[in-house]
Amino acid sequence: MNSECSYDIILMKFQEVKLKLKELLIKNRSYRRFYQEEKVDIQDLKEMISNVRFIPSAANLQPLEFILVNNEIKNKSIFKNLKWAGYIEDWDGPEQGERPSSYIVVLGNREISSYIKWDFGIALQTILLSAVEMGYGGCTIASFNKDNIRNLFNIPENYDILPIIAIGKPKEKVVIEEIKDNDIKYWRDENQVHHVPKRSLNDLIFISG
Amino acid sequence: MNSECSYDIILMKFQEVKLKLKELLIKNRSYRRFYQEEKVDIQDLKEMISNVRFIPSAANLQPLEFILVNNEIKNKSIFKNLKWAGYIEDWDGPEQGERPSSYIVVLGNREISSYIKWDFGIALQTILLSAVEMGYGGCTIASFNKDNIRNLFNIPENYDILPIIAIGKPKEKVVIEEIKDNDIKYWRDENQVHHVPKRSLNDLIFISG
Repeated sequence: MNSECSYDIILMKFQEVKLKLKELLIKNRSYRRFYQEEKVDIQDLKEMISNVRFIPSAANLQPLEFILVNNEIKNKSIFKNLKWAGYIEDWDGPEQGERPSSYIVVLGNREISSYIKWDFGIALQTILLSAVEMGYGGCTIASFNKDNIRNLFNIPENYDILPIIAIGKPKEKVVIEEIKDNDIKYWRDENQVHHVPKRSLNDLIFISG
Repeated sequence: MNSECSYDIILMKFQEVKLKLKELLIKNRSYRRFYQEEKVDIQDLKEMISNVRFIPSAANLQPLEFILVNNEIKNKSIFKNLKWAGYIEDWDGPEQGERPSSYIVVLGNREISSYIKWDFGIALQTILLSAVEMGYGGCTIASFNKDNIRNLFNIPENYDILPIIAIGKPKEKVVIEEIKDNDIKYWRDENQVHHVPKRSLNDLIFISG
């Protein structure tokens, strides 16, 4: 019998299926340096939004809409309006060659609903996990020049501009670690590895049982 | 050669892996009727929160904490404070025997951060997808008596009480359909099938390319 095809191997593959979500969740870090020359296909961006169609929405109102950008000229126009990584001093964001090759600008259509606060997080996580499943990685940028972005895409006033999601092929290593001395600030070591302290399971459980 | 172990079978299993997220997203409906006798193990609830450890958090502050409930007495106390399914008239929620067998009460620790609006949606989607992967289903309930829930669990004033997630083994069929006449209200047919109209991909894309 071919050992490649043993019951254990088959079972292992099912376990991979079972563990897939956790794998995606662990891989889904905030990446801030990318292989800029690796394009993100517009079909891949559309597939991420096609996944968003299925998310829960408060009162099922579905007020979110999306601008998909994957061309160099618009990428450049977006990039210069972004502020990166608040905790890392002396770093203005990724250098030319390491910038995201696509962006999703998320809009809240206030004619549908002004209550977008839960919907955005649900859509955001869905887009990021979808990106990771496709081999990309993203970063959510909440600090940017909204007026410039509004002008750039002629976004009407009845749309809120929500945080921007940068997506590309990640070029950096991000590691999760336990929190020390209650300090949640992420940091970068001398080898450019990005460290992110996360609270323990016990810290997250208020009462159980 | 054992045909069970052919290359095609192996490949098929990898394709299952590849399609897993969309499958979870489609299965992740808001379920409101459950097999109440099927318990949700406390370890499963903890595993959902252990997945939440890995989510992105605004400025990495991680202000969310969770109350895990899976016992009949507390379930009953929570249930009587909930308001179910706004669009469905003449229905006060699931009958005895069809109620959720567990709840996750989500709290925002304001001593850590009062900026929880994105974090909650990210955590919510992560918990719901984790529940679906484990064979459960959930529903998010934003309308409930907060004062009673605060008293029930002695939740200090410096914690915000966010929507409650009900989790159990789903007992109802939920179908997604295209929107007709711009009406996003979900509805229930004579066979108790729950219908949820979702906007099309084109409707969600504001600009592309």
